[in-house]
Amino acid sequence: MILKYKGKTKDVYSLSDNQVLLKFKDDVTGENGVFDPGANTVGLTIDGAGKSGLKMTKYFFEVLAQKNVLTHYVSADLNEVSMIVKEAVPFGKGLEVICRYRAVGSFLRRYGAYCTEGQKLDALVEVTIKDDERGDPTISDDTLAELGVLKREEYAVLKERTKEICHIIKDELAKKDLELYDIKLEFGRDKATDEIILIDEISGGNMRVYKGGVYISPLDLEKEFLG
Amino acid sequence: MILKYKGKTKDVYSLSDNQVLLKFKDDVTGENGVFDPGANTVGLTIDGAGKSGLKMTKYFFEVLAQKNVLTHYVSADLNEVSMIVKEAVPFGKGLEVICRYRAVGSFLRRYGAYCTEGQKLDALVEVTIKDDERGDPTISDDTLAELGVLKREEYAVLKERTKEICHIIKDELAKKDLELYDIKLEFGRDKATDEIILIDEISGGNMRVYKGGVYISPLDLEKEFLG
Repeated sequence: MILKYKGKTKDVYSLSDNQVLLKFKDDVTGENGVFDPGANTVGLTIDGAGKSGLKMTKYFFEVLAQKNVLTHYVSADLNEVSMIVKEAVPFGKGLEVICRYRAVGSFLRRYGAYCTEGQKLDALVEVTIKDDERGDPTISDDTLAELGVLKREEYAVLKERTKEICHIIKDELAKKDLELYDIKLEFGRDKATDEIILIDEISGGNMRVYKGGVYISPLDLEKEFLG
Repeated sequence: MILKYKGKTKDVYSLSDNQVLLKFKDDVTGENGVFDPGANTVGLTIDGAGKSGLKMTKYFFEVLAQKNVLTHYVSADLNEVSMIVKEAVPFGKGLEVICRYRAVGSFLRRYGAYCTEGQKLDALVEVTIKDDERGDPTISDDTLAELGVLKREEYAVLKERTKEICHIIKDELAKKDLELYDIKLEFGRDKATDEIILIDEISGGNMRVYKGGVYISPLDLEKEFLG
């Protein structure tokens, strides 16, 4: 098993047959010792964070598989804290697709002149480019097309698929009285088939979830949701 | 004549018949004493800057009128350094519509991972909200619709009209071997008819223009173009 890439929260190993193994780590992103899924730097190490993220990810990818949503998921091994996935090619240097149900975080920081904190949003989709140095700027469909990152038709596919997937996740969380405020997904092209598929993980580290108006941290979320 | 609003570079006076008078000032935006049309603060005062901006604005609005483009322009008085315009209602708290022919400025700062300085762009339109405090963030058509600032159809109209207007301005500049790299327009609704019209000014302070690859400052531009 050859180490392909050391990520902030996961290491990636090459397998045969266009598959890779993702090893979830206990490193989490954050600043000043506080776990912040939106941060770009690894802030701290929390025992069990990797396994917690994998449990959530396994759960959601298996729900999506039942609903015939195309994803990179093959299997997960909770003991080894690893997941086998189809190898995928990212769009450009990587895009993040955010789906927003309430105005919080960077959305509120940008558009606070036009909305109030926690205001409902109708599954609003935004795309950002993964670029730590430039603060992960948002990017429009026109700009993605102009810079050759994504065709307009592909953007439309990404947007619709994001809404579909996020509604499923939102509904799952709602079963435990948990409310999804926003969530960040990643997509890529299946290396074998070139189809657009959901990649990366789906865990507390990718979403903001509240219960009765109170924010639930990623690790508490796993306990509330799966415990 | 009642002072309605004191702007950074223009003061606005109420007239009758849904008209207002814009008094161009010699204050220009910039930082640390350098004229920077992209800046949000008034940096310095330059004798003749107001008149220079008005001369350019008068020229371009009169060209646009000949081509039947809807604008707020009524007349200009170079001696009084003032312009009479139709009163317009801004979209939300004001939007700026940028048309880009080359990658420079904030576009390059945001998307430098995907383009090189000065790379050609195909009349790429971006919208930003006027919000000094939040650094005039870009905003998508979806977000403008979600926040009730602009309907999707209105965004489409704005985008097409922006391209049409900017091509006219680009062609005018090209007659003097001047190349338009990017330009910022403002639109509003005609208070009398509710039609979407081009408002504000069209001067060196709203555009980046180069000659043979060398940037031409706003005041030099007026001399090169109209001198």
